[in-house]
Amino acid sequence: MAAKIISGTEIAAQIREELKKEVADMKEKHGVVPGLVTILVGKNPASVSYVTGKHKAADELGFFSIQDDQPEDLSEADLLKLIDKYNKDPKVHGILVQLPLPKHIDEKRVLNAIDPDKDVDGFHPVNVGRLMIGGKEAKFLPCTPAGIQELIVRSGFETAGAEVVVVGRSNIVGKPIANIMLQKGKGANATVTVVHTGTKNMDAHCKRADILIVAAGVPGLVKPEWIKPGACVIDVGVNRVGEKKSEKTGKMVPILKGDVDFDAAKEIAGAITPVPGGVGPMTITMLMKNTVKSAKTHAGIE
Amino acid sequence: MAAKIISGTEIAAQIREELKKEVADMKEKHGVVPGLVTILVGKNPASVSYVTGKHKAADELGFFSIQDDQPEDLSEADLLKLIDKYNKDPKVHGILVQLPLPKHIDEKRVLNAIDPDKDVDGFHPVNVGRLMIGGKEAKFLPCTPAGIQELIVRSGFETAGAEVVVVGRSNIVGKPIANIMLQKGKGANATVTVVHTGTKNMDAHCKRADILIVAAGVPGLVKPEWIKPGACVIDVGVNRVGEKKSEKTGKMVPILKGDVDFDAAKEIAGAITPVPGGVGPMTITMLMKNTVKSAKTHAGIE
Repeated sequence: MAAKIISGTEIAAQIREELKKEVADMKEKHGVVPGLVTILVGKNPASVSYVTGKHKAADELGFFSIQDDQPEDLSEADLLKLIDKYNKDPKVHGILVQLPLPKHIDEKRVLNAIDPDKDVDGFHPVNVGRLMIGGKEAKFLPCTPAGIQELIVRSGFETAGAEVVVVGRSNIVGKPIANIMLQKGKGANATVTVVHTGTKNMDAHCKRADILIVAAGVPGLVKPEWIKPGACVIDVGVNRVGEKKSEKTGKMVPILKGDVDFDAAKEIAGAITPVPGGVGPMTITMLMKNTVKSAKTHAGIE
Repeated sequence: MAAKIISGTEIAAQIREELKKEVADMKEKHGVVPGLVTILVGKNPASVSYVTGKHKAADELGFFSIQDDQPEDLSEADLLKLIDKYNKDPKVHGILVQLPLPKHIDEKRVLNAIDPDKDVDGFHPVNVGRLMIGGKEAKFLPCTPAGIQELIVRSGFETAGAEVVVVGRSNIVGKPIANIMLQKGKGANATVTVVHTGTKNMDAHCKRADILIVAAGVPGLVKPEWIKPGACVIDVGVNRVGEKKSEKTGKMVPILKGDVDFDAAKEIAGAITPVPGGVGPMTITMLMKNTVKSAKTHAGIE
């Protein structure tokens, strides 16, 4: 039986509709408008495209937003001053510094300078710590793991008591999603195993999973026989495995492949995310959700 | 075959000998003396006893230490001022606020006021975050989990590629030790599963463990048939199950029992920690180790 395809595109659109209403409501009842600033240093084409996508989403939701583009040769001191300015700006609830930064700037120092209460990316050590402590302490979950949790829950999979196996231990996906899923509470309370390059019998672990989250960055790593029949499979891998001519534009575009052998896996899994169109579309949406949360917290709403 | 008994008392003594030499060396070569301050508010008898134990250890190692005992009615504002004073004091490298605090004081606010670079207990969100991020980022590991890692490594168990199962997901033991063991690097790089009250088939998970770490707070929870023959079993539970007359003093003392059925388990495990005398003695020692590390970092040594 073919698996249900979990469409990140559809679920993201659903969440954005909810956020749109929430933002309109905040504006009407409290006069509060979520404010997001992006800081882009230089003109890396991929970064320009990401930043543009974020502003498009922010605009659609009715945010106040500032696209602060800076020259490639901006000094670290000036970047820190800029962050300090936005840290203090009451109209700004989320600050995003687009990575990578030019080599003369210390990325860690810059990211740690963002007020943790405006760190809507959720990568500041304070927010990583809050995530692990969990409960009411958790504030901004990093966007990709938070999106994964939404995909699972909104696809109707029960996480409480489920066997969750996470493949990969990156700071961006593997470790945070593992720590999110093992907490007490809704959409979590799972038994969690983290497997990685140091693991023996990765296949046997995957085979135990009711919910299998794969973020290894290895195209086709997870074979169909590693999947428990009926399992929920979340494929976080986005691997470029070649190029093809776009039918729409005639231009060459990358061929993307996930970490799971999708065509074979969908005959065994109960539900599976495609690549692209699965986890990817959730990330910016969760960033918007974090910004709304931040605006509410700063305004003392709820 | 009876298991090897892992003596926390002996391993702690070994580490303290190493620290003693390190402290003498720092003093001689760099004129640096690790400084530790404890702040105790009120006279809770258990707290007095813990604080005394910490100072005894600090004195034995040649630390500079301040026992700052404050009255029960100390205001939160005054406590925060005190912490600020020690945050700025260059002779102090570790600040410990003994818990519990009187009810009129917000514990979280107080703990978060400690400079994370002097938070040798490792419970500040910044240090929790650093632990999860791992690698060079990790700074002060919380003392009980750090002690568990030492017990495993110094007992000669290979952690790389091992199946580690952690029973319990507390912020003090379960979550941090799981996050420590799954990192890349020495004394870690294990495949880690966290099981808890929400887990089905806890027994089957435990049975898979090459290294089983039990921090559930339920006396005798882990049965001998849950243990893989030859496994390393670390019992973090310290449960008071009654009282008995001390042979030494004639006074009534608590009967302590671990989370593992020790007498039966030791016939199956390869190695096991007793309760008491296992994990317990490691905690203060790891606090001393963190303080030495802090003194070195502050002085720019290494």
